[in-house]
Amino acid sequence: MKHPHFSHMVISGLGLLGGSLGIAAKKSRICDQVIGVARRRVSLDRARALGCIDQGTLHLETAVRGADLVVLAGPVGTSPEWMRRISPHLAPGCLVTDVGSTKQGVVEAIEKFLYPRERKEKNQRTPPAFDFVGSHPMAGSEKSGIDAARSDLFAGATCLLTRTPHTRPEALKRTELFWRAVGCTHTLVLTPAEHDRMAAAASHLPHAVAVCLANVVAEAVAHDERTRDVLASGFRDTARVAAGLPELWQEIFISNRARLLPFLRRMTRELRGLQRALGQSNSAEVKTILERAASFMRSGGR
Amino acid sequence: MKHPHFSHMVISGLGLLGGSLGIAAKKSRICDQVIGVARRRVSLDRARALGCIDQGTLHLETAVRGADLVVLAGPVGTSPEWMRRISPHLAPGCLVTDVGSTKQGVVEAIEKFLYPRERKEKNQRTPPAFDFVGSHPMAGSEKSGIDAARSDLFAGATCLLTRTPHTRPEALKRTELFWRAVGCTHTLVLTPAEHDRMAAAASHLPHAVAVCLANVVAEAVAHDERTRDVLASGFRDTARVAAGLPELWQEIFISNRARLLPFLRRMTRELRGLQRALGQSNSAEVKTILERAASFMRSGGR
Repeated sequence: MKHPHFSHMVISGLGLLGGSLGIAAKKSRICDQVIGVARRRVSLDRARALGCIDQGTLHLETAVRGADLVVLAGPVGTSPEWMRRISPHLAPGCLVTDVGSTKQGVVEAIEKFLYPRERKEKNQRTPPAFDFVGSHPMAGSEKSGIDAARSDLFAGATCLLTRTPHTRPEALKRTELFWRAVGCTHTLVLTPAEHDRMAAAASHLPHAVAVCLANVVAEAVAHDERTRDVLASGFRDTARVAAGLPELWQEIFISNRARLLPFLRRMTRELRGLQRALGQSNSAEVKTILERAASFMRSGGR
Repeated sequence: MKHPHFSHMVISGLGLLGGSLGIAAKKSRICDQVIGVARRRVSLDRARALGCIDQGTLHLETAVRGADLVVLAGPVGTSPEWMRRISPHLAPGCLVTDVGSTKQGVVEAIEKFLYPRERKEKNQRTPPAFDFVGSHPMAGSEKSGIDAARSDLFAGATCLLTRTPHTRPEALKRTELFWRAVGCTHTLVLTPAEHDRMAAAASHLPHAVAVCLANVVAEAVAHDERTRDVLASGFRDTARVAAGLPELWQEIFISNRARLLPFLRRMTRELRGLQRALGQSNSAEVKTILERAASFMRSGGR
């Protein structure tokens, strides 16, 4: 299975990710036709005008009939509900995936629906004829919306994939090859819980830190407007991601709060350690803290 | 005074800043000759080979004889000592400046030496025939050393200048025009105390935050090496500056600790506020925190 091919791909949710995915999929020729689904007709018109989709519809259930690939690209919380809606209409062999930044809640909700416990206990398990594999392409931007969509959003990115006892290896492989076809150069298979713990440290914590930093600096600027002129590239890089869509990150933070909180507490402790060293003018300790960080960053950070 | 011109410029300290300044000054033709001073002969050879200086010497006192511009480009702590050493050798009309990231300690130490209180009290003040103006070109890189020197390091940067009751307006103006000649597009005149407060918020706090974040993420990577593959551009930007030279930042943090500490405490409180909101699953409060940051970043951040 070198190059999977899809004849009828559906992307539900046409924001930055959904839109970019459409352009990238069309460009890669991995599918014959991309159908976009959105809640408003203007979004469909814009997506078509930008070359993100071939056709658009407001009706999710109709769109997925006959599809062999469905990507749920709405906000994290929408995926289980959308899965419930499309499930009766999916053709056998169809592959369904998503793009959510948190996975445990979404994958559990979807699998609970697809493989209800009662059936299993009565030994009457009739697995659906389609597959669901959770995806999290680690691509994005502080920009959002379909107007920011671009064909190279996934170029060089890592895509995280989730595996559970329900995940069929062929489906996982097809999902992996799909993400590579649209530009991802790395894929990593994790359990949903592993995914959420790692994403908390590697992505959600940095975002939270950037947000808090931006708020503290905003306060200093409000106190003395000239501070704005003193902000150099160091600040702009450190806080860049804080410009990201508040609604999107609110949902990510809330849905992954159990994993994020320990890292936030750890971050607070690390800051307090630096405060203590500075309060005692402990140069050696300050240097140790700085050296640990520099050595990690110089080791590649990835 | 549109374009000042210097015939004999001395740069003491040939790291990233000193080296880049040499290339930029030579390129801008603001001076006829650039003399570099370093502690080791290999540094001088390297600086000459890279086109940063015309001539080099290990003897600071000899180098500054006849100079009309001296830039002290060593680590923050070296400037007062270097000023003490060069003072007897400076020609009338010479302009001395520095590049230090903190200013109050340096400027106070230098002015205490140049304008000792006793003389003033006895009404015998004989101001030196040369000028000192504190500078802080807000340019840098997580790279360091003369091999990272480049002619455009100051292009588009802001240079902060300090003014005290001792600062002569003409000297301030010449210093400002010098920094503009080597590429800075903004200059801002502050008291040393204002400088240090603003730099603490706009530059030292972001660095401290990036360092602490890098250390927390390094720990997560040590715990599960796969976390490294999950680090995306969000983390890399947020923590980028933490790769900076530990020795340099140790000195900056220690010398500006009185200004940095209140901002670190404020940062800790901001993180605790987010922790509290997440702990209570208070979606509205999480969104408010995210919105404040996004709105500040979208307002330009500078």
